[in-house]
Formats: sequence, structure tokens, C-alpha cells
Amino acid sequence: MKTYFDCIPCFIRQALDATRMVTDDPVVQERILRDVLRLVSELDLSLPPPALGHEIHRIIRRASNSPDPYADLKAHLNTAALELLPELERWVEESSDPFDSAVRIAVAGNIVDLGFTSEIDPQEVRATIDKALAYPFPSGAIEKLKAAASAARSILYLADNAGEIVFDRLLLAQLPGDRVTVAVHGGPILNDAMRTDAEQAGIGELAEVVDNGSDAPGTVLEACSREFRQRFDSADLIISKGMANFETLNEIDRPIWFLLQAKCPVIAREARVELGTMMILGPSQ
Amino acid sequence: MKTYFDCIPCFIRQALDATRMVTDDPVVQERILRDVLRLVSELDLSLPPPALGHEIHRIIRRASNSPDPYADLKAHLNTAALELLPELERWVEESSDPFDSAVRIAVAGNIVDLGFTSEIDPQEVRATIDKALAYPFPSGAIEKLKAAASAARSILYLADNAGEIVFDRLLLAQLPGDRVTVAVHGGPILNDAMRTDAEQAGIGELAEVVDNGSDAPGTVLEACSREFRQRFDSADLIISKGMANFETLNEIDRPIWFLLQAKCPVIAREARVELGTMMILGPSQ
Repeated sequence: MKTYFDCIPCFIRQALDATRMVTDDPVVQERILRDVLRLVSELDLSLPPPALGHEIHRIIRRASNSPDPYADLKAHLNTAALELLPELERWVEESSDPFDSAVRIAVAGNIVDLGFTSEIDPQEVRATIDKALAYPFPSGAIEKLKAAASAARSILYLADNAGEIVFDRLLLAQLPGDRVTVAVHGGPILNDAMRTDAEQAGIGELAEVVDNGSDAPGTVLEACSREFRQRFDSADLIISKGMANFETLNEIDRPIWFLLQAKCPVIAREARVELGTMMILGPSQ
Repeated sequence: MKTYFDCIPCFIRQALDATRMVTDDPVVQERILRDVLRLVSELDLSLPPPALGHEIHRIIRRASNSPDPYADLKAHLNTAALELLPELERWVEESSDPFDSAVRIAVAGNIVDLGFTSEIDPQEVRATIDKALAYPFPSGAIEKLKAAASAARSILYLADNAGEIVFDRLLLAQLPGDRVTVAVHGGPILNDAMRTDAEQAGIGELAEVVDNGSDAPGTVLEACSREFRQRFDSADLIISKGMANFETLNEIDRPIWFLLQAKCPVIAREARVELGTMMILGPSQ
């Protein structure tokens, strides 16, 4: 999707939040803000929002002299999510349809999003899972995804954030592990999951882990490694988690299933759903 | 007060809202947004936020080829407020302390603020007046303002927005009209009241009306006419309505009473009150 005018104030707000997270020095904060404003004033609106996010966070990393300003936060999010894992596993084990519940929990996990919150609140997680387990997803969507997964010789699972990746374990456990590859980010961007996060979340026990060779948010194919693109082009089924992957891939003609929550008005409009909708969006829909 | 980092995303959001109000042409909208972002990237943070708002709205007026893009809206706001005037007058007439009620209604009138809404909703106005009439203003504040008004040989009343200026009629009717001057803006800026609005609201029946010679939001003294500044410097009492006047005058050493609602987190922090506080803030407080 392209960048909408409404993304622009949001970029500035998110840049300010991120700036405050990486430095307490008001001089550095001011320099970052001015650089971001100048950058945004020249942005190419035809690109998806994460392409600009990429540039913004490059500015923030450079100015804060920190190659991965969110490293501690990511480890914390994973730890907090792992503490909830036994409970998540119980939801699935006790379910009459474990695949269905695991998909719903994977969507619920998309509440872990730094653009909106930097904390995992167990109460909020439980409420979100309750909501997801009862959520009126489009009729037959989960069954179709299950059938597609069962038929696929190769499944590429695009992870989203640290913390959230722990929730993905449940769905990965329902998929045929020897045919699944989980892709994480090749370099640090916001709280997006990297190899270390996949390791901390124990994803390697469930599937092969690769990185996409890129430190852009979402999946900016032009910025990804050749190996990743080969996997992307050849996968029979792609499961894409989160908003940034939707923003960068929703116009790509591949068998992609998007699992996300439409937490921003622009994405809700682009997807033609109400704000806050939990989405399971398959390629034919 | 200075401009805070938190003002910056808000400037961009308000500029986008204003841009959409003045033109439907996406090409013009994009040009305005880029110009505003570039401007904000170079802003002098030591100036109060309205100084930057002044520049932003100059860009918007120029790009939209409209000397007063809010003219229709202002007339509409005045008309809508005038329809409520008999009701407002009844609140005061039926009150056991008309001065007290009139001050409270003047504060309530500050909900008419284009940064937050472009419509006057009678239900919301009534709820706000209910709130203001019962509001726990600092003990003795209204009595002190009344005493100051009664002792003052000259009172300068700084009006805020179109629509809101109708609410000011109630308080003006309680003041000694022959010693009161109401100042409006000298040129168009957002929905701030100008001479035409004072005329439409019938302010001339209650006090002398002058303009401040400026089209900056709030009261940027450096941008005001010499005549206005003489009145400002010599008034025994200044009653200042609204946030922009607070932002531009809160560090000026004059006998100013600020009547406003702290509708933005930055102003609430600057004034050391909770967000949403109704404020009657005298010079010695």
C-alpha cells in the first residue's frame, strides 16, 4: 500500500516516541526530530509506510549511536511473553479445535506492537485472547488456511515483533514443521523480531529459521536478500504476521495469508474493515 | 511558553486537518504538507506554539488562494452560538450570583476550538456549562476577578474564537461596559474572532471593540499594532480567553486573568494542572 497523508502526523509522533526511548539528551532528541521532519517533507508517498519508517529509524539509530536501541526491550518482551506461554499452550490443548485456537492466538499476539505499546500486560493479553477465540472471522477462513497449510509443500511464516513471536509458537506447532520456514529480520528495526528473538522464543524447535536480510520494517522485497526472495517466490503458502508486513505486501500477487489486527485507521481503510478488526485475510478474498 | 517537542506531531496533525478544510485538491494538500514539514523542521522552539501556527496558516492561506479560508465556518459558529444565547442568558439571569455564572459560562465557551472541533453541539455545550457551573475553581478566584474588575479603570478583554465570542457576551454584560475594550484579531487566522465576528455577536453593544493588528494566533505582542500594545500595556486588568492567548502571554508580567480549558497535554503540563481542567488563573496565582 502507498503512504497516506494520515500516516504523516503518525510518523512524527512515532518518531518522537522512539527518540525518547533511545536518548534522554534533549539536544539529540531535537536533532533527530528536525532530521525526521526534513526527511518526511521529501518522502515518496507511493512507497508503503514502512519504507519511510526504515529511513526514520536509520536516523534515530545513527543519532543515538546505538545499533539496536530496542535490544533490551525486545528481550524483555520475549521474556514477558514466555511467562504467558504455558497459559497460551493450555488454551490450545484444551480447545476442541487446536488449529483454530492457535490461529486465533497468533492474531491476538499482534497486540504486541511498539507503535502502540511497549509493554505486555497479561490482563490485556488474556482479554485479547478471549476476544480472538470468540471473534467472528470470515466464515470458513480458518478452515481454508488449514487446508492450504496441509496442501503446501513449503510454508514461509513472516514473523512480526519480539514478544509476538512467542505467540506464533502455538500456530507453528500446528503446522508441518519440516515444511515451514520462519523468517525474521536481518537487521534491527524497532522491536521487530530478529534471529536472537527467534532463539529466545524457541522457534528453532518448531521450524527452520531464516532472516530476510533486511532491516526495513515489514517485508520490503527490494531490500531483502536474494535467498529470502527465492523462498518468498517459491513458497506455496506465506503466512504474514502484523501490520507492517501487510503494508508492504498487500499488493503482491503471492498466496499470502495476512494475520493481523487493524490497529490504525489507515490500514483499516486500506483493508476496508472497521478500526480494531482482527483480520485473517487469505489470497482469494 | 516555549514550544515543546510534543507540540510538533500535533502541529502536523492540525496542519493536515486545516489543509483538508481549505482544499480538496490532493496536489495542493501534498504541497502544503511538504511545506509545513520543512517549516517545522527549522522552527525556533523558544517561541510559543502560536508563532509557528502563524507561519503554518500563512502557508495554507497562500497555497489555497484564500485570504480567509475559515470565513464561512466562523459565520456558522457565530450563528450556532447565537441560537444558544437566550438559553445562556437564562442561566445567568436565574443564577443567584450572575457574575459568577457569567465567568463560568465564559470558560465553558472555550470548548469552541477548531483545533479540537469545528462544530457547536448544543448538547455538548449544555453539558460543558453544567460542568462549569459546578466546577471547583480555586477558592475565591471568581470573587478576586470580580473585585479586580470593579476596581479597574480600564479592562482589556482578549477574545478567542468565533462562536466562543458569543459566550463572552454574558461576562461582558457583567463588566462596566464604558471601561471595557474587547480586542479581536486584525487579520484572519484559523477561526479566531475578527471584527466581523464581534459585530455578528453584537459585542459593540457591550464594549468598545478594537483589533490587535495581527493575524497571529493568540497574542504575539511583537506582531500587534502600536495602538493595541499601548492598550495592553496600560490596562488595569486583562481578561484573556483561550489556549493560544495563554500560550503567548503566560510569561508576560501584566495583570492578566486567563480563562480557558486545558484541552492539550502540553498546556496542562505548563499550567501544572490535569488535562481537561477548566482554568481561571489570576496574576498572583
